Amino acid sequence: MRIGILGTGTVGRTLAEGFVRTGHDVSMGTRDVHATTVRRLNSTPRSFADWMAENPTVALADLASTAGAAQLVVNATSGANSLAALDTAGATNLSGKVLIDVANPLDFSGGLPPTFTVLDTDSLGEQIQRAFPAARVVKTLNTINASVMTHPDLLPEPTTLFVSGDDASAKEVASGLLGEFGWNDVIDLGDISTARGTEMWLGLWTRTMTALGTPTFNLRIVR
Amino acid sequence: MRIGILGTGTVGRTLAEGFVRTGHDVSMGTRDVHATTVRRLNSTPRSFADWMAENPTVALADLASTAGAAQLVVNATSGANSLAALDTAGATNLSGKVLIDVANPLDFSGGLPPTFTVLDTDSLGEQIQRAFPAARVVKTLNTINASVMTHPDLLPEPTTLFVSGDDASAKEVASGLLGEFGWNDVIDLGDISTARGTEMWLGLWTRTMTALGTPTFNLRIVR
Repeated sequence: MRIGILGTGTVGRTLAEGFVRTGHDVSMGTRDVHATTVRRLNSTPRSFADWMAENPTVALADLASTAGAAQLVVNATSGANSLAALDTAGATNLSGKVLIDVANPLDFSGGLPPTFTVLDTDSLGEQIQRAFPAARVVKTLNTINASVMTHPDLLPEPTTLFVSGDDASAKEVASGLLGEFGWNDVIDLGDISTARGTEMWLGLWTRTMTALGTPTFNLRIVR
Repeated sequence: MRIGILGTGTVGRTLAEGFVRTGHDVSMGTRDVHATTVRRLNSTPRSFADWMAENPTVALADLASTAGAAQLVVNATSGANSLAALDTAGATNLSGKVLIDVANPLDFSGGLPPTFTVLDTDSLGEQIQRAFPAARVVKTLNTINASVMTHPDLLPEPTTLFVSGDDASAKEVASGLLGEFGWNDVIDLGDISTARGTEMWLGLWTRTMTALGTPTFNLRIVR
């Protein structure tokens, strides 16, 4: 599948590597291609260009071209920038496509742990679905750290993911891609409003991360 | 230990049975002893008096007497009523005591799923600690349904609980009581502000319950 990932941060690069590994044709979209190329990664001497050299099949382009050429789009931008980035990508370029939203509505302006821009009465997933009604939004993967997203086998036991979305076939497509990464326990929570649940989970996730001293964990729903 | 449970609903009764089973001296506190005694349980013909007949060692008294006579107090009132009930129980009767808070700040006035009265900037646990500074508040057990609280073995695999509180020795006491129920994986999240995390988890808990069709589940933190 031709997958377009919007966002070139850790989450975007991790998903790009994962989708290449599972046989997909991956391109990444960014606001400013040149600035992204020369950017240093996580305060290391390594640049995005170095990462691209190691992942030569991944294309880099602007947001609109990436979304337009893709069959399926992933929103891997930060939650605070997601609506603006998707707007730049263009409603027409998202129309009719599965749009996997992995972002969270976190506000880091007050330090750690972050607060939220929406919580129990709305969600970023719903905001995106409302802003792009012709896109088939599926909220998923937002409940875990990037390290685990494409490598559930990093953890010693199987764990759980969730999908939320109004379009059942879009959720099936997303669950299929998750299955290729090794995710076998994916709970369909229901329509896109259930994204409030997985986004609110970040409130416990951040504090559990602090207590454990690592972001490499996940929940398993035992029932 | 002499444990006083404030609240006579499903959670209070379940905890009472559990603490009796693990060898404690249990009393329950309610606003109106007579009204509680004749109350029907969950729209069944069974009354609270029937339940008391089946649990003859459990005493029933008003909130202040129950808190005053107890060595450890459990807040098992509904979140909306917790501060008022604890106020009636009396700050002096809570002073210096471990106060296990199992309530959640849920607002059911708009139907299901509930919204929250506080979320990422405050928690019911902190509100209680601020209102009763001499109590040693420990937030725990609020992440699961009553059915699982005293019977973690109802689930096919071990699962995880959390404790939040400013007083390390109070958290040890609470974790000890949890251990008697069979809880072996209890994560200390830190000070009472981390109760925001476990309270926000209810946003995902309620939607998972709907998706699974049962409240008998819990998360396991796999790391």
